[in-house]
Amino acid sequence: MPEPDRLAVIGTGAIGGLYGAKLAAAGLDVTFLGRGDVEVLNEKGLRVDSIDGDIVIDRVHAVSDPNQVGPVDVVLVTIKATGNDVLNRLLPPLVRPGTIVVLMQNGFGVEDEVARIAPQATILGGLCFVCSTRVAPGHIVHSDYGHVTVGEYTTDGLPAGETDAVRHIVELFNQAAIATRARSDLVAARWQKLVWNMPYNGLSVVLDAGTDELMNDKRTRSLIEEMMEEVSMTAAAHGHPVGDGFAAKMLANTEKMKPYATSMKLDYEAGRPLELAVMYDVPLALSASLGVSTPRLSMLAAQLHFLDSRNRLIADNKK
Amino acid sequence: MPEPDRLAVIGTGAIGGLYGAKLAAAGLDVTFLGRGDVEVLNEKGLRVDSIDGDIVIDRVHAVSDPNQVGPVDVVLVTIKATGNDVLNRLLPPLVRPGTIVVLMQNGFGVEDEVARIAPQATILGGLCFVCSTRVAPGHIVHSDYGHVTVGEYTTDGLPAGETDAVRHIVELFNQAAIATRARSDLVAARWQKLVWNMPYNGLSVVLDAGTDELMNDKRTRSLIEEMMEEVSMTAAAHGHPVGDGFAAKMLANTEKMKPYATSMKLDYEAGRPLELAVMYDVPLALSASLGVSTPRLSMLAAQLHFLDSRNRLIADNKK
Repeated sequence: MPEPDRLAVIGTGAIGGLYGAKLAAAGLDVTFLGRGDVEVLNEKGLRVDSIDGDIVIDRVHAVSDPNQVGPVDVVLVTIKATGNDVLNRLLPPLVRPGTIVVLMQNGFGVEDEVARIAPQATILGGLCFVCSTRVAPGHIVHSDYGHVTVGEYTTDGLPAGETDAVRHIVELFNQAAIATRARSDLVAARWQKLVWNMPYNGLSVVLDAGTDELMNDKRTRSLIEEMMEEVSMTAAAHGHPVGDGFAAKMLANTEKMKPYATSMKLDYEAGRPLELAVMYDVPLALSASLGVSTPRLSMLAAQLHFLDSRNRLIADNKK
Repeated sequence: MPEPDRLAVIGTGAIGGLYGAKLAAAGLDVTFLGRGDVEVLNEKGLRVDSIDGDIVIDRVHAVSDPNQVGPVDVVLVTIKATGNDVLNRLLPPLVRPGTIVVLMQNGFGVEDEVARIAPQATILGGLCFVCSTRVAPGHIVHSDYGHVTVGEYTTDGLPAGETDAVRHIVELFNQAAIATRARSDLVAARWQKLVWNMPYNGLSVVLDAGTDELMNDKRTRSLIEEMMEEVSMTAAAHGHPVGDGFAAKMLANTEKMKPYATSMKLDYEAGRPLELAVMYDVPLALSASLGVSTPRLSMLAAQLHFLDSRNRLIADNKK
């Protein structure tokens, strides 16, 4: 039997906590890399209240220094893209040739930077379709969904196909009861994710609303549809169409979903920076360069930048 | 010498209080029609802290029953259009053939209803370019601007020209040191007002921001410009163009303006219904029927309806 994989999970929040716990519960060798939560994790372990069944990991291995870990087989990057600066410090010690780095992050363009930081790694994007929240250090609530799609990054954006690395991660995750699918075209997968993220994340912040409220009002529901169409048009013009009927499926799924406060809304309320660069600015710069008109998404981005700037100012004054 | 005009001012708020006080201070026979503020006005008078010089009217004639007033020469309607239901009760006793009714209200389509209620009156629209706030019953703060433009209503919307009624009101107001200009084309004047009102009122509510904040952020400033362009395009398609460079002038004026919370923002904060029908729905229905694309204004209207509905629900629950 081959040695089991050694995994490092960067981030101990909603995503890292949930998927890291599932992988650890499946008996895999998981080390968490974190900041403030590390002490609590080592002392009290990790608890996930999950619709899939609660998980309690009593003995967690969490560190803040990647040199205490050394090169691993798989790195999951689960922090928000707004904090990707720390990858310059965290990633290199964890990576050797053959290491698979999975960027379980939202938005567009996140892989390019990591490819620069860790050129010897195989880089994958992992898209999490999940309602999960970190309610306290070491305590995650997983309220809905949970599946992941994985695709390999290519510098030219062309579909990589189902590579060995992709198959390996799909197998690993599925072993840990994380429903995971391979995607040949990572860029198309990222556009699909944005079909949901761009309207719901932004509007939930601007209107201070849950997904249920946005769906129950006929005007905001129509607005969401129009925004999804703007994303879909851009994806098609970019050569990575999301597929017919995809937006309609997202709408229907969201209607069935439990009322949910998006991650961007939680960030906003906590005074944290919003993921505007990767979730709005990079994709909308692409729309503009492709000549696709996105007045609603651009307006939403302007509103979000306005609110985020004010929030930053308030947060800075509190320091 | 002819008898001086008898005036009735419907509304004792930011507009009625300010202009009513100016007219009363000029020695005109002014009766205020109001609800909750009537008692305070009769007991304590009316006070306007104004950039044009403070006004104190010790003896104010205020009533809630229009039958105590009877037909007058001029009626100024200064309530918000959301409260126009009361005109069914208030207007008929005040109007005889020859009475001039000036609708000093925002938005589009307000005159049509009044023409139905008081067919024997001559109906004018009066547009107030003013920063004025009712801070307490009988206490108005007038912080900036103050000029009025007046034009006569026609059922077909065609320019009425400078009619006798328009000239009469311009003269009357100017006597009372209210800078007032005649407009041949009331519909064009209303579009001009909307060039300012639609972006600033709506965005100030959605982003909880003053005019200064919206102008200082380059993204929201651009958004306002784009919205102004959508209004201007509709006005032109409607056959009532606002004129070259009008939007640019509005932007420049607003930049010079003292920081100002729009009337819609104050309404929202106070839990009052927003003037969405006359300020957004009617004009945007016109855009749609004329085939003018207004994605940003339509999105803003959807956001405002969402927020207003929730605000109504909260207000109703408090009752």
